[in-house]
Amino acid sequence: MESSRKENNVVPAVPAGFRSPLCSGWPCSSLSMACVSTQTIFLYLVIVFLSLHFVFATLKQRLSPAITRRLIRLLHRRNKFPAAASVFLRKDAREFLDSSTQIENKEDDFGFKPYMIRKAETINRALDKAIPLIEPLNIYKAMRYTIFAGGKRVRPILCLAACELVGGGERSAIPAACSVEMIHTMSLIKDDLPCMDNDDLRRGKPTTHKVFGESVAILSGGALLALAFEHLTEADVSSKKMVRVVKELAKSIGTKGLVAGQAMDLSSEGLDPNDFRLEDLEYIHVHKTGALLEASAVIGAVIGGGSEEEIEKVRSFARCIGLLFQVVDDILDETKSSEELGKTAGKDKVAGKLTYPRVIGLEKSKEFVKKLNRDAREHLQGFDEDKVKPLIALTNFIANRNN
Amino acid sequence: MESSRKENNVVPAVPAGFRSPLCSGWPCSSLSMACVSTQTIFLYLVIVFLSLHFVFATLKQRLSPAITRRLIRLLHRRNKFPAAASVFLRKDAREFLDSSTQIENKEDDFGFKPYMIRKAETINRALDKAIPLIEPLNIYKAMRYTIFAGGKRVRPILCLAACELVGGGERSAIPAACSVEMIHTMSLIKDDLPCMDNDDLRRGKPTTHKVFGESVAILSGGALLALAFEHLTEADVSSKKMVRVVKELAKSIGTKGLVAGQAMDLSSEGLDPNDFRLEDLEYIHVHKTGALLEASAVIGAVIGGGSEEEIEKVRSFARCIGLLFQVVDDILDETKSSEELGKTAGKDKVAGKLTYPRVIGLEKSKEFVKKLNRDAREHLQGFDEDKVKPLIALTNFIANRNN
Repeated sequence: MESSRKENNVVPAVPAGFRSPLCSGWPCSSLSMACVSTQTIFLYLVIVFLSLHFVFATLKQRLSPAITRRLIRLLHRRNKFPAAASVFLRKDAREFLDSSTQIENKEDDFGFKPYMIRKAETINRALDKAIPLIEPLNIYKAMRYTIFAGGKRVRPILCLAACELVGGGERSAIPAACSVEMIHTMSLIKDDLPCMDNDDLRRGKPTTHKVFGESVAILSGGALLALAFEHLTEADVSSKKMVRVVKELAKSIGTKGLVAGQAMDLSSEGLDPNDFRLEDLEYIHVHKTGALLEASAVIGAVIGGGSEEEIEKVRSFARCIGLLFQVVDDILDETKSSEELGKTAGKDKVAGKLTYPRVIGLEKSKEFVKKLNRDAREHLQGFDEDKVKPLIALTNFIANRNN
Repeated sequence: MESSRKENNVVPAVPAGFRSPLCSGWPCSSLSMACVSTQTIFLYLVIVFLSLHFVFATLKQRLSPAITRRLIRLLHRRNKFPAAASVFLRKDAREFLDSSTQIENKEDDFGFKPYMIRKAETINRALDKAIPLIEPLNIYKAMRYTIFAGGKRVRPILCLAACELVGGGERSAIPAACSVEMIHTMSLIKDDLPCMDNDDLRRGKPTTHKVFGESVAILSGGALLALAFEHLTEADVSSKKMVRVVKELAKSIGTKGLVAGQAMDLSSEGLDPNDFRLEDLEYIHVHKTGALLEASAVIGAVIGGGSEEEIEKVRSFARCIGLLFQVVDDILDETKSSEELGKTAGKDKVAGKLTYPRVIGLEKSKEFVKKLNRDAREHLQGFDEDKVKPLIALTNFIANRNN
């Protein structure tokens, strides 16, 4: 009796053969510990499996649209404290840029800043009129949001300056100047899309698709492109000149220009710089940035009534400017912070995109900037000395810009 | 001794106060069952929580880009066996379409089929030359894939026929005819994008972004648009006419045409037909489909050297054609299967998009088709009887097409 009570005390609630409803399959009497450990191990394994599955599924979902680009972003966030090497590079480049700004400023007896402000105001007024806030409201809002997001108006000013260089009047070139800015804005909207560079920030503001959604961004890009051609035809220019201008602009956008550069740029991501020649890099930049800058200047010269020789000189000048623009862009991407640039800095580097500093080094890139600046000026020889000044100042501005 | 041995036998491996490494916190001696159940319940709860989290996270990820459109697709798949009402509608519409085909065919002593084939071959040859397979290869491949995916070439044929109607030669209008087809193809690529209609099928083939990826699809769309304007300027046409043609084409693509229609179309999804007026529906179609058809015909008439009066007659005719095209499209979407159409059928209905059958009913839509066909013919009165024949036949073709 005593021993049986003792036995009852020891296994008080679990009669032999009892199966716990949670303990599937195993009798729990004397095997209770084995049951606990096997079951809990099994449950923990399920949890681990589910957690891993969840983490990987979430990661995969996030990675799938553009694995590399997301990784870039992750890496970039970790890069908040730059390594010694990049601190050196940044300091190095800042010195170079600051010093060259001083050198060039000595030559600037022309008063470039007021000139830029005056021209930019003219263009902004014309753009404001060309893109009113009418129906379809959403599209016009998106178009205006992007075009008035603080662009420097380099392309339209180049267009106006080239027109005046060959003796034309500013007024006749204003519609064309607006058109090149519309095209440029369209290309920015496209570049920033999730399936392209997937950028959230442009000129320090959220990108168009972030504010208006992807479909409105794409539609407003198309609308800007169409409006560029429509607006162009409103210029007070002879039909013969206009047809040439349309051809020049269309060429700069498509597979002989912008699109070719964008396509090559996308496919070059992640390539080893050693496998890439300087010519390939130039191909991207001549097409992606250079083509529209070239078209802007050439269109200005055509509208201004330049001779064939003059137009070709302007074209060669603009080619130098286009390449200069991009080399400086690459240097800035390498050496400046996101805040200073108003866009995500260091992106090209982390994305494995080919840049001049990556392919030829920072020192040689800086030398290249100086060489291109000299070359650009040479192409302007023979033009009226006073009319050349804005273009020389613009070249210096592009070479020495900080964002 | 005996009792102590018994005790040892009963709790053989777990000394009092022992804590299982898996059983955090609770002593496992006499509380082992309470421990088992609390622990397992806790573990099961974690599993349930993780599973729910996983399911919802996955669902959310899938829904987020365009919740409505994904739902549409799910609903659409369930709709494989159409309800009695839609079977009736399909039969009803087929009878209507078949009968009207017979009626119109009696009038077709012109031989429209060989005419269409001849013209389409001319255009295809010209397009093949205009879009060669060169660098950037991926972009040209995508452009060619989409433009040679079996389009009926209605717009370019309309352009050529309008040119010949006013006395022009086919040759001078061929570049323009190619251009309008390029613009049309660009609009299809854009329409099918995931952030727009998110379509996998077009003309019975996978859509451009499905084959080449989104970024190449967007770039090839932009390239087609640019090429359209560049190619246009190669036509052997006076500069004055060309400027007018560029303006007409640009207008038809932007916020006064295609983009306006696409924007309104996107924002009309899911609206109650009762809240929507017929005028709103016409606005979408006049812009989305009508504008480019109108531009195609007007451009043809301008290149062909038509008088202002003739050009305006052609414009009115094309406006009827444009609307006719869309009403028939809506009827087909309501009444045909995906296989017959070569694209996802019934999509507009499920997407809650406004269509003529939804707003005015199928019967009235069919009457509207007849009225538009009559109106279109009336605008052609006064032109040479023989030269009008292709356009009348084209109108009948559009009214009676099956896909």
